[in-house]
Amino acid sequence: MTMEAKASPEERLLEAAAELSYRHGIGVGIQALCQAAGVSKRSLYQLFESKDELLAASLERGAPAYTAWLLPSPDDGGSPRERILHVFERMETATLAPEFQGCRYLTVQIELKSPTHPASRVARGVKQALAEFFRAEAEQGGASDPDLLSRQLMLIFDGASARAGIGVDDLTGLISPTVSALLDAEGMR
Amino acid sequence: MTMEAKASPEERLLEAAAELSYRHGIGVGIQALCQAAGVSKRSLYQLFESKDELLAASLERGAPAYTAWLLPSPDDGGSPRERILHVFERMETATLAPEFQGCRYLTVQIELKSPTHPASRVARGVKQALAEFFRAEAEQGGASDPDLLSRQLMLIFDGASARAGIGVDDLTGLISPTVSALLDAEGMR
Repeated sequence: MTMEAKASPEERLLEAAAELSYRHGIGVGIQALCQAAGVSKRSLYQLFESKDELLAASLERGAPAYTAWLLPSPDDGGSPRERILHVFERMETATLAPEFQGCRYLTVQIELKSPTHPASRVARGVKQALAEFFRAEAEQGGASDPDLLSRQLMLIFDGASARAGIGVDDLTGLISPTVSALLDAEGMR
Repeated sequence: MTMEAKASPEERLLEAAAELSYRHGIGVGIQALCQAAGVSKRSLYQLFESKDELLAASLERGAPAYTAWLLPSPDDGGSPRERILHVFERMETATLAPEFQGCRYLTVQIELKSPTHPASRVARGVKQALAEFFRAEAEQGGASDPDLLSRQLMLIFDGASARAGIGVDDLTGLISPTVSALLDAEGMR
């Protein structure tokens, strides 16, 4: 017996959904989820209305920790340029994990092919928060077009994590010069 | 009766695999493929070793027309900069189609999560040809680091088609300034 309290069936299902849908895609079956969580199908449907809702809840559960890890703290004292580069350094670090297969909040939207799916909505919100962070920093740093710069940085973020996720680019020496070129073109301090 | 010869079962299966895997993802079932093609399961397995092979063959079949459409003709007389921008104009045009859900050669790799899957290999080859086109034009145009520029352009291409595919950015006013900033930073003529 460990000192740690056992995770509840709900927590185990959320964890299984997050892990298996990331590793194998959104097609992962109810059976596999229940087995990994050690929970009956009946319990799953008592806790969640559907697999769709379970998937959405699993993304929602992980989002605050992900965003806190990705973004610099509000009072880190860095310049807007440094704070933007911090995000890309974090993203690059994430791609080094052996299990990395791309940003889960992008991948799930690509796989679901439905903007109205509850999990797509959650994922879109997480990415939207990142876009808003970029926009605020761009404005703070005197970018000539903060909206444009934010959209450009999202392109780089999603393109880079997708390409690293499928193993076609290891990002070595790529991100910093690319982001810097776009920050320079926008006249960022 | 039309004058046109009827498509063979093989062609109908390739077409169904291309269309349904794009619309619904690689999880599309054998049953659905056979039904759409009007072909029995038995015939499918006489023509293709597996669903994986059918999917790979369907991507391979569409690749030459896609690449010919995407790239400028070798003798179009454009500058390397114009020839690179041509590719991005084509990509933007593609995103306007109501059925657009991202570049299929990126999406299939993200969905399959297996670089050794026969369809991933085909898709990687198609993207590799684009990366080589960018690299050759970058060299021709005097880029200070043609390899880096090619990788940067692939980031933009994949990031942009992914984000347009999931409907979070319509790319208006985004691609041309982004690509131009990177071409300028690399000193491209």
